[in-house]
Amino acid sequence: MTGTTYFKDMVQTITERGRKLWTFAPRAERLPSGILGLERLCEMLLSSRGEASGMALAAEILQQWSRLSEDEQRDFMLLLFEKFGPDSKRLDAAIETYRVERTARAVLELHRAAEPRRQELIRRLNLAPNGISTLVGMREQLLGLKADTPDLATVDADFAHLFASWFNRGFLILRPIDWSTPAHILEKIIRYEAVHEIGNWDELRRRLAPADRRCFAFFHPQLSDDPLIFVEVALTRTIPGNISDVLDETRAPIRAQDATTAVFYSISNCQAGLRGISFGNFLIKQVVEDLRSDLPKLDTFVTLSPVPGFASWLAGERHSGHSHVLSTGYQAALGALDDAEWPNDPARSAVVKAALMPAAAWYFLQGRTKDGRPIDPVARFHLGNGARLERMNFLADGSGRAMRQAHGLMVNYLYKLDDIETNHEAFAQRNEIVASPAVKKLLRSDKPGRRLAPAKEPNTKDNQPDKNKASSKELNS
Amino acid sequence: MTGTTYFKDMVQTITERGRKLWTFAPRAERLPSGILGLERLCEMLLSSRGEASGMALAAEILQQWSRLSEDEQRDFMLLLFEKFGPDSKRLDAAIETYRVERTARAVLELHRAAEPRRQELIRRLNLAPNGISTLVGMREQLLGLKADTPDLATVDADFAHLFASWFNRGFLILRPIDWSTPAHILEKIIRYEAVHEIGNWDELRRRLAPADRRCFAFFHPQLSDDPLIFVEVALTRTIPGNISDVLDETRAPIRAQDATTAVFYSISNCQAGLRGISFGNFLIKQVVEDLRSDLPKLDTFVTLSPVPGFASWLAGERHSGHSHVLSTGYQAALGALDDAEWPNDPARSAVVKAALMPAAAWYFLQGRTKDGRPIDPVARFHLGNGARLERMNFLADGSGRAMRQAHGLMVNYLYKLDDIETNHEAFAQRNEIVASPAVKKLLRSDKPGRRLAPAKEPNTKDNQPDKNKASSKELNS
Amino acid sequence: MTGTTYFKDMVQTITERGRKLWTFAPRAERLPSGILGLERLCEMLLSSRGEASGMALAAEILQQWSRLSEDEQRDFMLLLFEKFGPDSKRLDAAIETYRVERTARAVLELHRAAEPRRQELIRRLNLAPNGISTLVGMREQLLGLKADTPDLATVDADFAHLFASWFNRGFLILRPIDWSTPAHILEKIIRYEAVHEIGNWDELRRRLAPADRRCFAFFHPQLSDDPLIFVEVALTRTIPGNISDVLDETRAPIRAQDATTAVFYSISNCQAGLRGISFGNFLIKQVVEDLRSDLPKLDTFVTLSPVPGFASWLAGERHSGHSHVLSTGYQAALGALDDAEWPNDPARSAVVKAALMPAAAWYFLQGRTKDGRPIDPVARFHLGNGARLERMNFLADGSGRAMRQAHGLMVNYLYKLDDIETNHEAFAQRNEIVASPAVKKLLRSDKPGRRLAPAKEPNTKDNQPDKNKASSKELNS
Amino acid sequence: MTGTTYFKDMVQTITERGRKLWTFAPRAERLPSGILGLERLCEMLLSSRGEASGMALAAEILQQWSRLSEDEQRDFMLLLFEKFGPDSKRLDAAIETYRVERTARAVLELHRAAEPRRQELIRRLNLAPNGISTLVGMREQLLGLKADTPDLATVDADFAHLFASWFNRGFLILRPIDWSTPAHILEKIIRYEAVHEIGNWDELRRRLAPADRRCFAFFHPQLSDDPLIFVEVALTRTIPGNISDVLDETRAPIRAQDATTAVFYSISNCQAGLRGISFGNFLIKQVVEDLRSDLPKLDTFVTLSPVPGFASWLAGERHSGHSHVLSTGYQAALGALDDAEWPNDPARSAVVKAALMPAAAWYFLQGRTKDGRPIDPVARFHLGNGARLERMNFLADGSGRAMRQAHGLMVNYLYKLDDIETNHEAFAQRNEIVASPAVKKLLRSDKPGRRLAPAKEPNTKDNQPDKNKASSKELNS
Repeated sequence: MTGTTYFKDMVQTITERGRKLWTFAPRAERLPSGILGLERLCEMLLSSRGEASGMALAAEILQQWSRLSEDEQRDFMLLLFEKFGPDSKRLDAAIETYRVERTARAVLELHRAAEPRRQELIRRLNLAPNGISTLVGMREQLLGLKADTPDLATVDADFAHLFASWFNRGFLILRPIDWSTPAHILEKIIRYEAVHEIGNWDELRRRLAPADRRCFAFFHPQLSDDPLIFVEVALTRTIPGNISDVLDETRAPIRAQDATTAVFYSISNCQAGLRGISFGNFLIKQVVEDLRSDLPKLDTFVTLSPVPGFASWLAGERHSGHSHVLSTGYQAALGALDDAEWPNDPARSAVVKAALMPAAAWYFLQGRTKDGRPIDPVARFHLGNGARLERMNFLADGSGRAMRQAHGLMVNYLYKLDDIETNHEAFAQRNEIVASPAVKKLLRSDKPGRRLAPAKEPNTKDNQPDKNKASSKELNS
Repeated sequence: MTGTTYFKDMVQTITERGRKLWTFAPRAERLPSGILGLERLCEMLLSSRGEASGMALAAEILQQWSRLSEDEQRDFMLLLFEKFGPDSKRLDAAIETYRVERTARAVLELHRAAEPRRQELIRRLNLAPNGISTLVGMREQLLGLKADTPDLATVDADFAHLFASWFNRGFLILRPIDWSTPAHILEKIIRYEAVHEIGNWDELRRRLAPADRRCFAFFHPQLSDDPLIFVEVALTRTIPGNISDVLDETRAPIRAQDATTAVFYSISNCQAGLRGISFGNFLIKQVVEDLRSDLPKLDTFVTLSPVPGFASWLAGERHSGHSHVLSTGYQAALGALDDAEWPNDPARSAVVKAALMPAAAWYFLQGRTKDGRPIDPVARFHLGNGARLERMNFLADGSGRAMRQAHGLMVNYLYKLDDIETNHEAFAQRNEIVASPAVKKLLRSDKPGRRLAPAKEPNTKDNQPDKNKASSKELNS
Repeated sequence: MTGTTYFKDMVQTITERGRKLWTFAPRAERLPSGILGLERLCEMLLSSRGEASGMALAAEILQQWSRLSEDEQRDFMLLLFEKFGPDSKRLDAAIETYRVERTARAVLELHRAAEPRRQELIRRLNLAPNGISTLVGMREQLLGLKADTPDLATVDADFAHLFASWFNRGFLILRPIDWSTPAHILEKIIRYEAVHEIGNWDELRRRLAPADRRCFAFFHPQLSDDPLIFVEVALTRTIPGNISDVLDETRAPIRAQDATTAVFYSISNCQAGLRGISFGNFLIKQVVEDLRSDLPKLDTFVTLSPVPGFASWLAGERHSGHSHVLSTGYQAALGALDDAEWPNDPARSAVVKAALMPAAAWYFLQGRTKDGRPIDPVARFHLGNGARLERMNFLADGSGRAMRQAHGLMVNYLYKLDDIETNHEAFAQRNEIVASPAVKKLLRSDKPGRRLAPAKEPNTKDNQPDKNKASSKELNS
Repeated sequence: MTGTTYFKDMVQTITERGRKLWTFAPRAERLPSGILGLERLCEMLLSSRGEASGMALAAEILQQWSRLSEDEQRDFMLLLFEKFGPDSKRLDAAIETYRVERTARAVLELHRAAEPRRQELIRRLNLAPNGISTLVGMREQLLGLKADTPDLATVDADFAHLFASWFNRGFLILRPIDWSTPAHILEKIIRYEAVHEIGNWDELRRRLAPADRRCFAFFHPQLSDDPLIFVEVALTRTIPGNISDVLDETRAPIRAQDATTAVFYSISNCQAGLRGISFGNFLIKQVVEDLRSDLPKLDTFVTLSPVPGFASWLAGERHSGHSHVLSTGYQAALGALDDAEWPNDPARSAVVKAALMPAAAWYFLQGRTKDGRPIDPVARFHLGNGARLERMNFLADGSGRAMRQAHGLMVNYLYKLDDIETNHEAFAQRNEIVASPAVKKLLRSDKPGRRLAPAKEPNTKDNQPDKNKASSKELNS
């Protein structure tokens, strides 16, 4: 317990800092307006004056930034690109020395000389009150601008490099989110939920307050109002096969200590400005640790996950004249999907299911992107974490989005603790997709790579799955 | 106030983390014992397995580290030097590309290729519970080893680079230290006090509990039990001229709201493993902000500081046959210093004072190290922060240390808010020492660089003060 | 600041206590079921066994209570009435001794002997985890039962006596309620709001989050999830004349430091089981203190209050054949009120206003209940606190309730700090209603007690206002 | 966890309250100085003015109180006795009504009429900031004054009555005290320790910091800086037989989870002003609950307790010409006690032990005060709580106090969870002392009541132990 009490109070100063720090403002002086003035301020911040008045200068720059139009923001980013790269002369000299000496010292100087000056600039901007928050927002803008202005990719690389270091998992704090969490945090949970929309506060309450529900989020100490990522968990006695069972308003909660299964049914990244900084893997594993410690009877950790890439992939195969995957019989059976009413007709449903489930098995087990990775982004995330594909659930989510993205399909990924490392290695190094026998069986009658077809139909074509490296740490839901 | 309440509780998880995280341990396997096994673990942590089992691997490495003998620790550090530098092939290729292309993309790759692999290793070691604390301790060892093993300087540069980023002031938390602070923190204040020793808990109480005393420390959120730096402050109505007035057990405290002057009479860095990461400048300025906001009547912010380099410099001048500084008359007068009883004899004291004070003025205003910086390390710190040398106090600290280091001399540095930036610039860019007229006057009769002498004695030699850059951010007290 | 940090953590144990304390359960034994068993348990709790197993016995009794039907609850309360009153023999003996001796010692014994045994029983029931919460709920039931069962009034007197002592203002804690307050507390704010309904979380947010809104509540340390009373405050630059200006969704918030006026526009008691324990007076005054300290520019503290008794009083006067108050002209003018559409017709509105406002002035200034108190319960509360009736606002609240209760009338009570004690004394001791000149003026043309009439109509009757004591501390909104 | 987070912050306002509340000060007016003025203020506080300005009036009275001399304080208490008793007329009327009616309503009025007016006065004094703290201090003074001024006993009864209600265990908070507790609390632990003196902070650290030490205290939410009672616990693997083993500076701590035994080796009441309000029984039981929940392997809960009354009782028996207890042989053997060096001589020690241990058994098992209670106050406390006397330890505490009070004897009382209620009942109702067979065996050769003697000596006299009620809840150590 040592120290926690004390620290709790420490944090009060964080937000108070915002009001102060202005005593040591830099000398007022006439600066050019607009980007030129900003350039001048940035140079001042990097100079020795930054040592005396760093906090005030940083605050001034961030404040000016926040008032820029989008075009001006682009100009500022281009300024960072053009004027705050490395010092070429120093870099050339460092290269020369390295080529001659090849000493550790020369490498060190080379590394330093190659570091763009904007990295130190960003570090010093962080001196401003709430600097990190503004910097994360700055990168969110930058990610938008980058699409049109490829030069900004290197600027983004510098932000990403620093953020990866600053948001190192060692600095993050896991917090339960429950019905006693402050409203301004909960409001953000509603806003950030990216998988199963939370329509209002009553729905939120149903996800947080019952004894068999849990939610956890990662926070950074300097972004204490704003979660980085959160996961919603249902405690159950079986692995659920559809989301409506989980979210049913009328269900009777069970006692937490009676649960055997923890279902991760929604994981949402919160900060667009932290794209590419991966938290999900750590979050899931930390939450598994915490739940096991609180509720020793839990023995099954499983997701109930969307399949966001399935429908568009399937459309491609259905409408391709020469699908490697679907036989014409399957293509015909799947024609029922074109009428949105199909789920309401049991007969049609059964026909669809017979074709759609093997196709889904193919999608997960054989399908690959051009660079050899699983097609489905959520699959890449969980398989990359060492989970295995446990079960596919037909018509498991009837919401508009799920029907559009996946014809209602959901899947369970199983985090079996003893196998996680092996699964991860198999995936990371040998591109293997670990799946349960039940899932594999759906492909069994068909040789790998053959077209999926009703059992009787002969397979006619081979398919060469890409063999490239397929590892992804990114969650995309 | 938004969010602070909530955050307070967030932190509880920090220390609890220590107990957990072991579910996802890496596969047990036979590893070589000793350094070879550690090398293997480090490679695993950097590999894709590090993604699946990073926290457990990092914890295992740090635990093994903590059991190493000093010789083995050196071996481990040499391992980091030899095996975890940059990948030479990749670096050579990056250089080649850069020389050809000179694009931003090529610079980026060059910067990345030049980054020693141990930087990422250190980042991943931070995943371990309490990782940052162990890493800071690791660098403390490294600083010791570096003296004998120059190769380790580059390893240290990597630690220093990461620590400077992680301990960015934007991530630090200022906290008052008072008599309601937890004992295990106060115990460290006693231990870390580096200027005026705190003999026991009663002395500590006298520095913290009275209404006219303050103490502030910086903390890092992940080192919440351990201050990084702290400053002790006395609230007074005048600028004190000696330390015994400040620490007098029998003095009557004044009401804080009656004070006009805040005296920073002790500043101590706490973490040897963070040497070179500068906090003092920010600390003083933040404390000035906080005090001004709490006590608007405060208008004077001043130190009462030791002069740790003075006696040894003076000894050099006194025993030099050809001092540029001291006339023979002064040398004779200062002979009294050789008898430790001199302060007890008013007559001898007066003689000493007449010679010692001008010599001290010379020491501060004219004296320079070979690289042109002020000789006194504490002077370098405060002048570098933009303070001015306000007053020199004869026989202001009778403690053994102060008598040995400075013949009892103490000085006041004044932080005059409006002048700080200008002073800092003058010091940083033009090597100017800003001092009060009273201090300068002590040199007035003597032309700069002339030997100090009793007023009547003619000056005989010139002295060329170094004009090199003289900036130091480091506090050394 | 001393001690607050530490205490914060202290409270964690409160709710944890609920789970424990069962080790020292009383010996299992066969007890009669139902009320007889409860009687037996209560006797055990009062006996020496209560000393050994008090917490467990108390918990058992409270748990059994919570499972009783309403009829059984009445039986239990009657049990408390019949079996747990004072010991008659002891009481008679004490009276005898007192009559003979008349010593302080005899008075003490008399006081003790007259104390019903249920008082000690209730004190011991408070040993149970969350005992106070259950006891408050118990009294809420009791208040309902009391109506039909007059004997229970003395039982209620014992609860009320203990609660008044336990909920002494010295034990209460004032807390701001804002948008960072935990959701489970805010949920109760929505539920308990008794004046201007809060329809949903968005409305709640508009009352808490803007910079010019405040809300404060009293809590008891052992009921930390449940406010006792709260007040909603708007910071403005003028005294508002209607509630829609205050609650307007589209208004632009002002900066708190620009406000001159704090408007208490809603005060709600939360705990039915604490009826008769008065918190409102302390709450308002404490909030005034806190606001003044935070925002020194605030100089006006005023309510915007409903007039819940006005319409029914006015109906009586309108339909009385011999109203002392309304002339027939006024009665005619007020006939417009019978058509709910009157507010939408400016002409009719003007007619109504000309009669309704003087009537309202009479209602406040001259109207009295049979026991001589102001008719309006909210007036009794604020005037009893020392406020003065500052302004009456025609058609100030168009909500269904306000139209039904007060034909839309609202009033401002002004808390003028220098006058509060004098006003209070005038009200408490001399039955004087303090009102602004503007309010009084509405009665000026009519002598006190005369029938209100259009200006030209002669007054024909006198009215003798009751002169009985008129003090009320209870808020009834 | 619901609500705890939120509440933590709530408490901040407690101490801040001290600074405010002065806006609503009563009208300045000329009051008589001294006690007369205080009487006037007290009457004002009880009057309706107390409703308007209660907090300010209460604060004024308490402030004046704190400046009174001891004689004036006595005068003030006599004032409470004489002028703030019950209203005699009302009381007489209530008695008359009761004798006629004998209704519940009449009893209620009788109870109210018999309540001294000072009870309501004390309740209203509690409105002052930190009122409860001052009131507890006030009673501490009163307890001293009471000895000389018997009239004040009834005043004290009123304080005691209110404090018993306000400090009901249901309102107390149990808190661990450890090395991370704020120093200003720990300072009080040092000061309040009443059994085994804590010489300095290093000794305190040894009692709090090691893994096998625990300390717990009860706090009241409004006295958050000041513990009410605390207990120090050693976690061990055996029942210790002397205090030096427990406090040994050089012992090696064990891991808490390896302990089987929790030893309560020191219990100290802290607030003299709360004398007679019993917390110890609840504290021990709550701590047992908490320890069992944290450390399930703990199965033995035992004290190591002083025997403060033994030496003086033994002296009586030794020097009595006609001891009922000690044979002349035993008296002779115990003569060795008169030489303070006896413990250093093994031979003499053995002689002493042979006589002293049976005498001690007699002291505990047969000895009784005139009113039939065990002689030893600590025995009364623990036996009254349901513990049994488990073991007597010869020469178990060599400190000056323990040698003087008990010739070094200490005993273990065992809290065996299943037996506590039975033991308590046996003690409370049948005056039985529950002791282990080993303790009883020391008396076995001697029939109860016979003089203790070397085995061969015939018993000559009978002794009739008192049979009066012997229950004590008070700890006196």
